[in-house]
Amino acid sequence: MVKSLAVERAGSSAIRDLLEVTEQPGIVSLAGGLPNPATFPTDAIARATAAALAEDPVAALQYGPTEGHRPLRRWIADRHGLVRGSGGEDQVLVTSGSQQALELLTRSLVDPGGLVALADPAYVGALQAFRAAGVELAAIPSDRDGLCVDLLADRLAAGERPTLVYVVANFDNPTGSTLSAERRTALAALADRYGFWIVDDDPYGELRWSGTAPAALRDLTDRTITLGSTSKVLAPGLRVGWAVAPPAVVRAMTILKQSADLHTSALNQQIVHRTLAEPGFLDGHLATLRRTYRAQAEHLVEALEEHLGDRLEVAAPDGGMFVWARLLDTGADTAALLGPAVEQGVAFVPGAAFGVEDLHPSRMRLSYATADPTGLDLAVDRLAGVIPAP
Amino acid sequence: MVKSLAVERAGSSAIRDLLEVTEQPGIVSLAGGLPNPATFPTDAIARATAAALAEDPVAALQYGPTEGHRPLRRWIADRHGLVRGSGGEDQVLVTSGSQQALELLTRSLVDPGGLVALADPAYVGALQAFRAAGVELAAIPSDRDGLCVDLLADRLAAGERPTLVYVVANFDNPTGSTLSAERRTALAALADRYGFWIVDDDPYGELRWSGTAPAALRDLTDRTITLGSTSKVLAPGLRVGWAVAPPAVVRAMTILKQSADLHTSALNQQIVHRTLAEPGFLDGHLATLRRTYRAQAEHLVEALEEHLGDRLEVAAPDGGMFVWARLLDTGADTAALLGPAVEQGVAFVPGAAFGVEDLHPSRMRLSYATADPTGLDLAVDRLAGVIPAP
Repeated sequence: MVKSLAVERAGSSAIRDLLEVTEQPGIVSLAGGLPNPATFPTDAIARATAAALAEDPVAALQYGPTEGHRPLRRWIADRHGLVRGSGGEDQVLVTSGSQQALELLTRSLVDPGGLVALADPAYVGALQAFRAAGVELAAIPSDRDGLCVDLLADRLAAGERPTLVYVVANFDNPTGSTLSAERRTALAALADRYGFWIVDDDPYGELRWSGTAPAALRDLTDRTITLGSTSKVLAPGLRVGWAVAPPAVVRAMTILKQSADLHTSALNQQIVHRTLAEPGFLDGHLATLRRTYRAQAEHLVEALEEHLGDRLEVAAPDGGMFVWARLLDTGADTAALLGPAVEQGVAFVPGAAFGVEDLHPSRMRLSYATADPTGLDLAVDRLAGVIPAP
Repeated sequence: MVKSLAVERAGSSAIRDLLEVTEQPGIVSLAGGLPNPATFPTDAIARATAAALAEDPVAALQYGPTEGHRPLRRWIADRHGLVRGSGGEDQVLVTSGSQQALELLTRSLVDPGGLVALADPAYVGALQAFRAAGVELAAIPSDRDGLCVDLLADRLAAGERPTLVYVVANFDNPTGSTLSAERRTALAALADRYGFWIVDDDPYGELRWSGTAPAALRDLTDRTITLGSTSKVLAPGLRVGWAVAPPAVVRAMTILKQSADLHTSALNQQIVHRTLAEPGFLDGHLATLRRTYRAQAEHLVEALEEHLGDRLEVAAPDGGMFVWARLLDTGADTAALLGPAVEQGVAFVPGAAFGVEDLHPSRMRLSYATADPTGLDLAVDRLAGVIPAP
């Protein structure tokens, strides 16, 4: 259990410096978690913006309530299956991206020095928010079925008392894993027994193109806070996300949000609500996204298996944006490979960037979300020049 | 010196409950600091949005840098007279409203338990940000020339060591006062001598229609952080503001902003930059704003003098959005008058809402920004039914 490991943070910072280079022309990046810009629904957003400014400019341009635009909160409540007419929207806070939701709930619920449990490896933005809030981290190993809930249970039984347990239950960042149905049931039972909050950060859940989604954690225990985002479904530049949480948690987060930024852009909330509520839009757009990312994922995994199958282990994902590849050369370190890879014109994120206690030296996160098939081929070709044989 | 006064916070909360009622139809509100929606440059914003989405949708819709859209940072640097070509934009962080800038700089620069000095009365949003950060507050009296810098000097000489001194030097909220040239020079000298930061929160500086602006604090000492906002100049619903600060402070705030919300909406930064940079737009629009608010201010002050001159002392402002009126009946309490006023269909903010240590019972903040002349007349008429004669 550590507050921060200097070695990791120094490592992360060196990695950040290298990754900044990946924005340069000529580099094919599998590093970023950026959606493919060809999927942005620019026309629908332009239509929604024009309509918002023409029909009700004051709602789009004046100060608005900290909790968010009520029709958007209602839409989110409906989407999450909250009961209509019984104040379901009181369980929704609209935030400036789900990153803000994570930061506000951490500061609302966990005192400095309090404990947050999470999978190791973990999403970098979550690590940043937790470390900025000064909380202690309990790193729990994870595998292909997500967080090892039995190991969490052992630590709880041994007396550790996290206030929050953070998971990306659907298509985890960075591992791509989905928390299994069995582990969800077990995790929910632990939350009820020990009284911690489960934070289910869910930006990728709508991007499933294969298999069946297990029950949402929210449907298994009331001690769940679900974070949602439009960044992967519409466009990240809008910075609109949300938390779905019990009303008391929403109220506590709202008080902090008031001093954090008063409220999320009223114009962007109008754009998001009008776009999402346009009849037929969302289903059609999600179908396009799933088709696009499925094709890109299959293309990348096939190319990796063909050209690097003897050096890299990968699993074909059912959704999301990431492959968590493993070097078969057990002596190699992905952090040390990044520099040579960037010189060859390809980038990835080494496992160390996501480390809580472990540095995951054999792992690299490869995103198939941003590059098109031609770019993916080029990336694999360049990676093949850098990754050692076992 | 207090961290928080329970009586004030309870008072503020009761006031908040009452002020929520003022959003109801039939109430003429002089309470909010909301810009007059008739001044929103809706057409310019619609043009800028359409152009941003047509010309460079990826820049508007993809993830962007935490520091902000570089051309907007450069525009802000130019507007603040920072030297071009020498990295002036490295002194600019774009934020989700200037409220976020205030919150980030407080958390970046002041440790919990650290000391912030500010005028009493003070802007409610600043009080919230400071209290949420767990800092101690040193309340310094203020008068028509702003913060009483000589009283601050006495406290510094007595050994108090604030990390920040917070001022709204131009057209203060709530008092409408402008910090005099002499006091600015004295405050800058104290900052240099004692090593504190001056935070000059400046949303209203462009709204001057009379008199000459004293030198900006930023031009008097490098130990100044200037906060700017588009909320009063374009529209609050965009939630775009900024901090101008030494690069080291910008870097510290950027790290916190990364975990707070990754970055401010790329679309809205595009809208703001394109609108502000449109040749001729800003000068023309500022002229309209100044003409509008001047007319509304003069209308309100004249009506108050005519109908309540024997009961209320007011001063005609040179800019901004607020009149800080004083009851001549020294036994009356504006907090107690708010309930009856709301019953009569008019709202204001009692002095207690802005109190740091003092409750300012004889004071009320009246905003002429939102209501048109007919509404202002109605408001004064209704106030006259509530405010007691001395």
